[in-house]
Amino acid sequence: MPTSYSISGFPEWSPEQRIIEKRVIEKIEESFRLHGFINIETCGVESYESLIKKGDGKEIYRLSKEGSGEENLGLHFDLTLPLSRYVLERRGELVFPFRRYQIQKVWRGERPQNGRYREFYQADIDIVSQGELPSHFEYEVPMAMCDTLKSLSPLGLGSFSMHINNRKLSEGFYRALGIEEIEETLRRIDKIDKLGPEKTEEILREVVGEEKSRACIELAQIKEKDPLAFEEEIEKICARWNISKGGEEKSLMLEGIKDAELVLSALRRAGFEGACIDCSIARGLDYYTGCVYETFLDDNPLLGSICSGGRYERLIKTQKQSYPGVGMSIGVSRLLSYLFSKVGAGRISPAMVLVSVWNEEERWRSDEVAKILRGRKIACEVSPTSAKIGSQIKRADKLLIPYVWFVTSQGSEVKDIRSGEQSKADPLSWEPDPRYAADIIVRE
Amino acid sequence: MPTSYSISGFPEWSPEQRIIEKRVIEKIEESFRLHGFINIETCGVESYESLIKKGDGKEIYRLSKEGSGEENLGLHFDLTLPLSRYVLERRGELVFPFRRYQIQKVWRGERPQNGRYREFYQADIDIVSQGELPSHFEYEVPMAMCDTLKSLSPLGLGSFSMHINNRKLSEGFYRALGIEEIEETLRRIDKIDKLGPEKTEEILREVVGEEKSRACIELAQIKEKDPLAFEEEIEKICARWNISKGGEEKSLMLEGIKDAELVLSALRRAGFEGACIDCSIARGLDYYTGCVYETFLDDNPLLGSICSGGRYERLIKTQKQSYPGVGMSIGVSRLLSYLFSKVGAGRISPAMVLVSVWNEEERWRSDEVAKILRGRKIACEVSPTSAKIGSQIKRADKLLIPYVWFVTSQGSEVKDIRSGEQSKADPLSWEPDPRYAADIIVRE
Repeated sequence: MPTSYSISGFPEWSPEQRIIEKRVIEKIEESFRLHGFINIETCGVESYESLIKKGDGKEIYRLSKEGSGEENLGLHFDLTLPLSRYVLERRGELVFPFRRYQIQKVWRGERPQNGRYREFYQADIDIVSQGELPSHFEYEVPMAMCDTLKSLSPLGLGSFSMHINNRKLSEGFYRALGIEEIEETLRRIDKIDKLGPEKTEEILREVVGEEKSRACIELAQIKEKDPLAFEEEIEKICARWNISKGGEEKSLMLEGIKDAELVLSALRRAGFEGACIDCSIARGLDYYTGCVYETFLDDNPLLGSICSGGRYERLIKTQKQSYPGVGMSIGVSRLLSYLFSKVGAGRISPAMVLVSVWNEEERWRSDEVAKILRGRKIACEVSPTSAKIGSQIKRADKLLIPYVWFVTSQGSEVKDIRSGEQSKADPLSWEPDPRYAADIIVRE
Repeated sequence: MPTSYSISGFPEWSPEQRIIEKRVIEKIEESFRLHGFINIETCGVESYESLIKKGDGKEIYRLSKEGSGEENLGLHFDLTLPLSRYVLERRGELVFPFRRYQIQKVWRGERPQNGRYREFYQADIDIVSQGELPSHFEYEVPMAMCDTLKSLSPLGLGSFSMHINNRKLSEGFYRALGIEEIEETLRRIDKIDKLGPEKTEEILREVVGEEKSRACIELAQIKEKDPLAFEEEIEKICARWNISKGGEEKSLMLEGIKDAELVLSALRRAGFEGACIDCSIARGLDYYTGCVYETFLDDNPLLGSICSGGRYERLIKTQKQSYPGVGMSIGVSRLLSYLFSKVGAGRISPAMVLVSVWNEEERWRSDEVAKILRGRKIACEVSPTSAKIGSQIKRADKLLIPYVWFVTSQGSEVKDIRSGEQSKADPLSWEPDPRYAADIIVRE
């Protein structure tokens, strides 16, 4: 992957790669809009206090200025915290449930040696309610994301699997076992993907002891595509660990199971065969309270989750009112690092035509042709030089501009430099071949 | 103007305002592409050393992290410095002349009490050459910008005037007078717009003395739309200050005059009547070497220049090679503060249809209709509740969604909530009224 990191950790793309990035963002945005999400953009900074409350200080970029020193500002590291502030500030004017999308860069000062980006695009959708949030949103948001990821298949995105879990399920099970350190247990279980079950069981033992640690790992290993098979697995594990049917903990578990199954069946009904309930999905963030989601590429699971999120109850709140929500985020830059191997740019310049220049005295003729073409929404560039026609064509060739226009006082001709065909053309009526409009080429 | 500044100096728009911002950016981008400019995006940071070399330390945001302290990174304050780095890093792979556009946020820690934004969008085009840069680019870039600004007239942008000057003209004149402090003189002349001629003459006296100061102010007051009248004015001022015809300084002046006139006549030929040569345009930045440009709105000159730039010779260079360029930048956020008073959003949600829900058990029916509509690229939202139809319609009304869809097991009906018309509809073939596609309304 020809990635440039002139500033360590801050990726920057070539013009060709940027075409792909732009196209990916456009596709994502189109899908978000089809699902009725409203666009907002928040500023790049948040108060440093609010950032440090939710994030890791070692990864937060704080701002300072010569003369005034450290400011009470830092760069946002996600789009959830900004959403939370935005919703609270505008709660009097927004229409709830508020469906918003936001596609922006975020910054995290992670160690570049981990191969992580320090600046990257996220594409988020959230539905935020005032007061109650019905559980159908817990399938509507992942459904919108599945539709969105599917819409990227013409850009090379292969099949993917969305893994669903529910915090109530895990918490109910942990509590039924007598575990009280719910958050810490979730945080350690979240590492199972990287560490494997043995190592995770080991680090979990320090918190909950040997037996409970084994039970937690057993739960985390339940992964089913079929709701009935999933229920059977749950019955078995409850029997094995003596979790009674009646308890409060068990009913919390059952709520979680119901909500997770609702998502699973909605996704399967919509044809997303890759959907499954996966009890290892914990999500490190402490604000999730219901369903949680992670999404993996079938042909590149090691890339990690490309689209994650969950339901939160108390992340956005005033003293009097809470604003529960469900949100998911696509890691666009991470996705790109994968898509760059699947697709290439079929164009470099957006120009469809290079208008050649006969000599500098007659450059105005070429300018006039260009003006007419642009007025008809045909992108073009006037040749930078009036040097030999061969060298003018060479520029079109290098920039993958399909046509070269020849202007004389007697009229115009246009040459398709790929086929070599040349014919008379009137700038007022000429049309380029529509197949040249494509600026993305899927490899192999 | 309903602007929110929850973080002082960092503007953030309402969903309706964001629609306008997005549309403005799309229009600008479309025009840049029609002119054959290639898009790039650079990261938000630059090395602090390179920033401090070109900018004011008090306005540059430097980054720091807990534990590691101040980093050698700061937020970029324009898109020219990043371009310069990008071009040098990729000089082996780019095709020169390199025509690039870039639309991104930049950050400047200016005092918010000046009404300046600390975070704002710039939209830049530059043409960068390797070695020589022919002077026709000095009209091509401002011409592309005039076309771009004109393309914003459906969004409320009124007529504008592009003011052209040339550094060689000013420098030749100053040198002919015997002034050696060229940069300092230009920097002070640049203030004439804000301070007026008397006050500027005063502050200029400290540098060049009383007589030369008067001469400089006289030159700065030359402003002509007609090339012939302009040449006459220049002849007169040269005669008045005894500037001989033969000298080296005079020939520098003449070069500047020729290049400025080339731009003026190209813009006038293209129908931009507002173009003029204005010898007060100095541009504070020291890297300009040829034509310089500023653009003012005829109905709001106090907004200041909305689109500025110029030619630079030695801004981008290696030890062996220089990369001269011409570039201009639109201050998008400044423009927006003006456009918000001219246009409003005709939509809030991108949804064309709110699919109502009869009861929660039958929500799946509404989901299916929504799926079909989305597959046909008709944006829609499924009602968040199955409450009384009246309250569902109310949501559509608040979000300016034009249609409400009613789903029953017997079939669908759709209601245009503006006209009140209701009729049978098939999600596989129904089409919305095309006039509802407009999401911008021009006021008055």
